[in-house]
Amino acid sequence: MSRLELPDDTGFGLDNLPLGVFSTPGTAPRTGVRIGDSVLDVARLTNDPVHATGSLNAWLAGGPTAWRDLRSRLTDVLAADRPQPLHPVGDVRMHLPFEVADYVDFYSSRHHAENVGRIFRPDGEALTPNWRHLPIGYHGRSGSVAVSGTPVVRPCGQRLDGDRPTFGPSRRLDLEAEVGFVVGVPSEQGTRVPLGAFPEHVFGVCLVNDWSARDVQAWEYVPLGPFLGKSFLTSVSPWVVPLAALESARTAPPARDVALLPHLDDAGEPWALDLALEVRINGTVVSRPPFRDMYWTPAQQLAHLTSNGASLSTGDLYASGTVSGADRDQRGCLLELTWNGTEPLALDDGSTRGFLEDGDEVTISASAPGANGGRIGFGEVTGRVLPAR
Amino acid sequence: MSRLELPDDTGFGLDNLPLGVFSTPGTAPRTGVRIGDSVLDVARLTNDPVHATGSLNAWLAGGPTAWRDLRSRLTDVLAADRPQPLHPVGDVRMHLPFEVADYVDFYSSRHHAENVGRIFRPDGEALTPNWRHLPIGYHGRSGSVAVSGTPVVRPCGQRLDGDRPTFGPSRRLDLEAEVGFVVGVPSEQGTRVPLGAFPEHVFGVCLVNDWSARDVQAWEYVPLGPFLGKSFLTSVSPWVVPLAALESARTAPPARDVALLPHLDDAGEPWALDLALEVRINGTVVSRPPFRDMYWTPAQQLAHLTSNGASLSTGDLYASGTVSGADRDQRGCLLELTWNGTEPLALDDGSTRGFLEDGDEVTISASAPGANGGRIGFGEVTGRVLPAR
Repeated sequence: MSRLELPDDTGFGLDNLPLGVFSTPGTAPRTGVRIGDSVLDVARLTNDPVHATGSLNAWLAGGPTAWRDLRSRLTDVLAADRPQPLHPVGDVRMHLPFEVADYVDFYSSRHHAENVGRIFRPDGEALTPNWRHLPIGYHGRSGSVAVSGTPVVRPCGQRLDGDRPTFGPSRRLDLEAEVGFVVGVPSEQGTRVPLGAFPEHVFGVCLVNDWSARDVQAWEYVPLGPFLGKSFLTSVSPWVVPLAALESARTAPPARDVALLPHLDDAGEPWALDLALEVRINGTVVSRPPFRDMYWTPAQQLAHLTSNGASLSTGDLYASGTVSGADRDQRGCLLELTWNGTEPLALDDGSTRGFLEDGDEVTISASAPGANGGRIGFGEVTGRVLPAR
Repeated sequence: MSRLELPDDTGFGLDNLPLGVFSTPGTAPRTGVRIGDSVLDVARLTNDPVHATGSLNAWLAGGPTAWRDLRSRLTDVLAADRPQPLHPVGDVRMHLPFEVADYVDFYSSRHHAENVGRIFRPDGEALTPNWRHLPIGYHGRSGSVAVSGTPVVRPCGQRLDGDRPTFGPSRRLDLEAEVGFVVGVPSEQGTRVPLGAFPEHVFGVCLVNDWSARDVQAWEYVPLGPFLGKSFLTSVSPWVVPLAALESARTAPPARDVALLPHLDDAGEPWALDLALEVRINGTVVSRPPFRDMYWTPAQQLAHLTSNGASLSTGDLYASGTVSGADRDQRGCLLELTWNGTEPLALDDGSTRGFLEDGDEVTISASAPGANGGRIGFGEVTGRVLPAR
């Protein structure tokens, strides 16, 4: 126990120090760090205006030096004494922690891609020919990224009714349990970010729920990919866990089927991360997706994303794609968990779900191994479904 | 002739008044309006700090009232006397006119979609089943949008060599002649923007070259759409032509094959626009795409984009997709003009092109009918291809 009286299983001990943006009633949003069940006001502690902007972006742009300096200072302050000003986490409101520049969503779980392939293209190969050779991804809508707790208004959209398109509230609203990576340091257009430079650009990690309207998506996505089936809302957890807190979570990626091209060959840069996710619907745990099984790592995703010279901006967010393991109770979305609604899932209250119903609350949480056998907590990303307007 | 001595065919007369961001040597970027071959310094003329931010965004957010007020003031100033401070257009440097929030690219030319379908999916229907029912679109990379004149560094990427993926400089670098629409007024998440509200949100129009690496795109795009084949650079023209200048360009859209769902039925809101585009490679005119033939209008694209409740942000840019007409010399990209490189195009210097070569300069320009038989000019978007790094 530190002098903050942190229980051993807090997930928010001195080895974590995730950053977010919070406010208390009547005050402006500012940077805070979570420690145990409290939030330390980093803006007041440091008196640095970069922490009073209501967004992590300006500080994120400072890069690894700024990241290390603040972490070192917070470690000293928190280890030495009970710091001020500290707020109980229940007394603060959390905000979107960073202004999202570009948002990219990958498709890097082999189990997920195979399941989706079997469901949507039952007559073809489960994986498309490119899948083992590159981390498939696409751009999502950055303006639709919102902080955990934002209501999920059921989207309307165009979908097939038999063989006729109609417009109305989605009937196949789904969750997607994902892990997101937050870029701090930009890169120049025309240059690439090699695998080894991943921790020079990416500050940290959050949880992502990439809400999906499967009926809209199924009708629209050929040939240019998902659009309105995804763009109504993407929720992120309020705390960004620094990569620096995940040293004990680094692990080897799964064996690959094919030799990788040099810019994606991560033999020397294994950045798989042993995050254990948990998905709950109305309190029932419906899945425990293992992030360590992802075929493509976040370092490979970044190397791929910039391999054509695309620049990075401070605030870029890229997500892993749905995290699914090999087992049925490790699947990261209802499309897979219920096999497109054909095998409904039982909740603890006795009800069943094919897809999400109005009023349902979905919560994704995660933890990872920390220093000295402890755990690193990610908090949670949650949202309740409201009826279509 | 006004007192500014504007030739009749300037394209930048009193009925146009496009806005951009410019600087002169040693000064900061600020808002300007183009009149004839001059740029009027709007920041100095008005002394309004909103015009000194180096981006149109803050002013765009002011909405139709701010747009009308400035247009009215500029009209008065320019009609009354030779205004100051005026700079020759050749003496200023133009900048990206607005900070791009989300960038969406549509696929709304039927001729283009049919040609691409025939080239990439020769055994199937040219149009996918959804094409006539909704304006297909996808999100692009907003951080890669740059102003006209930005060099086009040939992107590297993964593409098939026979049946084996390799990595290297794209061999099928292409242009795409498009028209872009710039959102000024945001909308709230969970709400829709109906067809009739198009001019309440969209300020104006620019030209777009959505550079494309066809070999990269062909390998990556199944199943989630274009990604690195597009995300290395998207160029926009420096002048944003107000919708208010395009009243004489409004026209009826082409007849549609199927009845449209109510939110896309534009019988009462015909927003096809009679823009005449021209594409030049190293000075040779290779195409004259007619924007008036687009199947889906920008008002329908906006209604579709927000039909799921996705919010709009100030600075959102959405582009039409490649503009192609029915005739061969009206096709808006080399993929179509050369039928995927199999029918090379002759340039005036006697050389031929399948796709773009290092050193090639591509320029897209456009004009539209203005008041009293005059023309509204859009200027141009241009870029020269540099060798891969």
